[in-house]
Amino acid sequence: MELLDGQLVSNIIKEGLKLQVGQLTVEGKKVPHLAAVLVGNNGASETYVGAKVKTCSEIGFRSTLLRLDADTSENRLLNIIDDLNNDVDIDGILVQLPLPKHISDEKVINAILPSKDVDGFHPINVGKMVQGLPAFISATPHGILLLLEHYKINTKGKHAVVVGRSNIVGRPMSVLLSSNTPTGNCTVTLCHSHTPNLSELCRQADIIVAALGKPEFVTADMVKEGAVIIDVGITRVPDSSKKSGFALKGDVKFDEVAPRCSYITPVPRGVGPMTIAALMKNTFMACEERSGGSLI
Amino acid sequence: MELLDGQLVSNIIKEGLKLQVGQLTVEGKKVPHLAAVLVGNNGASETYVGAKVKTCSEIGFRSTLLRLDADTSENRLLNIIDDLNNDVDIDGILVQLPLPKHISDEKVINAILPSKDVDGFHPINVGKMVQGLPAFISATPHGILLLLEHYKINTKGKHAVVVGRSNIVGRPMSVLLSSNTPTGNCTVTLCHSHTPNLSELCRQADIIVAALGKPEFVTADMVKEGAVIIDVGITRVPDSSKKSGFALKGDVKFDEVAPRCSYITPVPRGVGPMTIAALMKNTFMACEERSGGSLI
Repeated sequence: MELLDGQLVSNIIKEGLKLQVGQLTVEGKKVPHLAAVLVGNNGASETYVGAKVKTCSEIGFRSTLLRLDADTSENRLLNIIDDLNNDVDIDGILVQLPLPKHISDEKVINAILPSKDVDGFHPINVGKMVQGLPAFISATPHGILLLLEHYKINTKGKHAVVVGRSNIVGRPMSVLLSSNTPTGNCTVTLCHSHTPNLSELCRQADIIVAALGKPEFVTADMVKEGAVIIDVGITRVPDSSKKSGFALKGDVKFDEVAPRCSYITPVPRGVGPMTIAALMKNTFMACEERSGGSLI
Repeated sequence: MELLDGQLVSNIIKEGLKLQVGQLTVEGKKVPHLAAVLVGNNGASETYVGAKVKTCSEIGFRSTLLRLDADTSENRLLNIIDDLNNDVDIDGILVQLPLPKHISDEKVINAILPSKDVDGFHPINVGKMVQGLPAFISATPHGILLLLEHYKINTKGKHAVVVGRSNIVGRPMSVLLSSNTPTGNCTVTLCHSHTPNLSELCRQADIIVAALGKPEFVTADMVKEGAVIIDVGITRVPDSSKKSGFALKGDVKFDEVAPRCSYITPVPRGVGPMTIAALMKNTFMACEERSGGSLI
């Protein structure tokens, strides 16, 4: 069994971007600039946005964090997005979700210029991804593909079972793994809350992507010997033995599943760091594109 | 075994639309107007476009058929699309594919106003469909859903195996059948040319959607007793016993598969007529939307 070390691969990707940013600076060119918008004071959102801004600074990207009060109106937020769309210095825009209930996620996401939509949530980026056209792929699925690529996991002709059909992870993973690309060409089964025989299907899988958000859901008896396991879940579970009072658990019961696998992502230090690395890669691409490339 | 009679259901849908158009006329409102663009003289395309225009006239829609020479430039076609986009009388625009090689399908499809894209091929409609938002669903998948709906086929919790991952049929069907909707909530396995154990997977299926374009590919030994079979294929196969010299064959070996099924679409008179009915439904929706609805 080999660990798919998201922390390691994420560091490699970030180092690569850092070098590229250094090169841009030497050449007197613009460096990537990410704008992050955070509405309200959700603790998890603070953490996520904080990590993204910190990573920008580590690799030499510029970043702008806009903190807005929880009672910011939808119109005000849409105006801010509009300003960011029109700001020639901004390459990528991310609005941290979830938004307060009085604001429509959909309206806000659709307002972001698709060419600055580094989270890849705009329907036009989703549609292009599905059609196999160049597009921003949202950060978690993109990060998983980068991890598979780094470890040269052979996906072609393999049976991937994706558990969970969220718009952010499960659904795009099911599309990407079945697309005609070097990290695709899997036969893909997409399972969800209405799948009656989930264990049976998982046991057929060469690759399992667990993205349902239920800690330790995937157990050893659901996993075929030699399978590749991608664990997207990360849930705080009370644990009195920890100083913090909680432990982070993935969707996979790691201790019993790991010995059966060929490869497995740990939690933490698996998919999580890859998500940020992928976001940085998207932001770099957005900057390149705006400087005259033609990827998106 | 019961036939999923696409001709019958298509007629019912068209009758319904005819009544609705009659009502619009009585109320002095605008009737739906479809613009179809045909470039060159491809025989099959002529037939398809002809059938669409004829159906418009049968149900009281207006239609405009623009026939362009095979050597029409891409720019000229894009200008025509632009005119149709801006023409307040036109509700839906379809450009019959394939286009001549010197014209980019992608550029042309992306030029159609999403709110007039009744074929549902624009990435923004594809993305919205994937995200479960209101969107034009392309005609063949939409037609199949209407057929499932008419026969009250229970899809929830069923295992659907979709064979073929085309952007036009297989891919969107895999998404729609797994979505959280009354004709969705299936566990979906998407198979394609790189799937090694296709027969084994098909045998697990409660529902098979065969959309690979290989005549009589799905045989009885690949089908579980009681399965629902949707045959999207339609290929001309030489047949000297026919006056025309050919027979139309689906992707399913009908004679041997039918006795095993609970439901099966015939070819012809199955999915084909449903495709046209769905296109008409999309055009009606586009007209409603432009007259002040809020569906798309």
